[in-house]
Amino acid sequence: METELEKYMSCAMELTKQSSQLIRDRIWSEKKDIQTKSHRHDFVTETDQEIEKLLITGLSSQFPDHKFIGEETTSSGVKAELTDKPTWIIDPVDGTLNFVHGYPNVCISIGLAINKEVVLGIISVPVPNLMFSAVKGCGAFLNGNPIHVSGCKDIKDALLALELSGAAGVSERIETCKKLVATFLQNAHGVRSAGSAAYNMATVALGGADCYFEIGIHAWDMAAGDIIVREAGGVVIDPSGGKFDIMSRRVICASSMELALQVGGMVDQHYPERDDA
Amino acid sequence: METELEKYMSCAMELTKQSSQLIRDRIWSEKKDIQTKSHRHDFVTETDQEIEKLLITGLSSQFPDHKFIGEETTSSGVKAELTDKPTWIIDPVDGTLNFVHGYPNVCISIGLAINKEVVLGIISVPVPNLMFSAVKGCGAFLNGNPIHVSGCKDIKDALLALELSGAAGVSERIETCKKLVATFLQNAHGVRSAGSAAYNMATVALGGADCYFEIGIHAWDMAAGDIIVREAGGVVIDPSGGKFDIMSRRVICASSMELALQVGGMVDQHYPERDDA
Repeated sequence: METELEKYMSCAMELTKQSSQLIRDRIWSEKKDIQTKSHRHDFVTETDQEIEKLLITGLSSQFPDHKFIGEETTSSGVKAELTDKPTWIIDPVDGTLNFVHGYPNVCISIGLAINKEVVLGIISVPVPNLMFSAVKGCGAFLNGNPIHVSGCKDIKDALLALELSGAAGVSERIETCKKLVATFLQNAHGVRSAGSAAYNMATVALGGADCYFEIGIHAWDMAAGDIIVREAGGVVIDPSGGKFDIMSRRVICASSMELALQVGGMVDQHYPERDDA
Repeated sequence: METELEKYMSCAMELTKQSSQLIRDRIWSEKKDIQTKSHRHDFVTETDQEIEKLLITGLSSQFPDHKFIGEETTSSGVKAELTDKPTWIIDPVDGTLNFVHGYPNVCISIGLAINKEVVLGIISVPVPNLMFSAVKGCGAFLNGNPIHVSGCKDIKDALLALELSGAAGVSERIETCKKLVATFLQNAHGVRSAGSAAYNMATVALGGADCYFEIGIHAWDMAAGDIIVREAGGVVIDPSGGKFDIMSRRVICASSMELALQVGGMVDQHYPERDDA
């Protein structure tokens, strides 16, 4: 008999497939209606808004008592609030800058939190047609095949995912990036920047990257990745070494606790305003 | 009637498809037999060697008077020499570090130079099943559909592809990377590091990235990308602003000459030992 979680997954997966087709249809089309949000590098497109609506409408029609935290809904001024109730945490287009440019690393990220714990996640990468998924206790999958983290325990053997973002040329942010690059190039095997938090987390779950670190992202960037990485055998923690808090805008996920703590010990800690502030 | 170039393309494409399947079969398999080459971050796997052999054997059986420059053949001590004769320039696995880790950006890159000009190119990205191709005068294609560069003319609107490589922690290289990151984050829309030169050039041809700059790569990393970017309407030049020289280990490719020259003017110039030295 289908469990509740399987029912949620089946519905979310169907809606994700429809949404993925929209991204494939539009990523290289000539015209995208683009608006800027907080600064000149922060975009939202009609597609972001349309997919978030498609997902929320579809899920809430099936599960009318469920709550939602969506990137675009939150941007429009609705407060992000995580309660114990089943709450879908949605990024309709993770990697909007990639989408705007037509760079392939664009994801749809959907997580479901119950009692504030993410118990189900889907990350779809529509262009290469990679569908990552996980349900609590059942393992993580890529296109239906089981995946697992690399097991890497030492940064000297690690491929690290991190984002270098100028945040519109803010010089403090640039200094942080220079320091990160120096630290990681000195110590790690290599560094990759995909331009999508969900993609980075999915590649850690896959065993492709060994660790991903970021401060400043949002609950909707991390929710699906959190459960997918953990179900793939990895760890998701706060960069300070403490427990991961999905509303904190801080994350390290890695193939092992040893590596997560090692990387956490090498980076400057800062605490942006929380998603539920 | 099929032209000579079409005949070459058809043969190379068939061999590339076979080779792509090998990469898909092996990228996430448990065991890879890995050797290090020049330093501890420079790998070669059995798959690199096997694919190079498959391609060279297949092409030379059809075209016995053609010459070859292959990454693995050259690594084994055979001098890379580009003459006017038809010469296949081959990287069997571009992004070997990605392949070793299981990070998806792995490419097969095949270019054919005649009279020292690349006239045909294929870049296959097997995991997402993206096949880029171009023949001189006939345009560039992704999975059979025409592609073109973005047309971006100003770094402020550009997504830049660049690689941050510590080359085993060499401090001079790390300083260069820090400077690059600072320059580009200050000026550009964003920065992406895919870990594969061929992938970077393919994304410029696609219009996904707007510019890719690198010094220190090799003829086999750039040959296919050179013709694919140019046939997609982009430019490929030396970072100094001069004519591209495939044996020089230096490249800027971009969506426009304006952007290529702008980026070239922002970076330090250096001149590694040539591939034909």
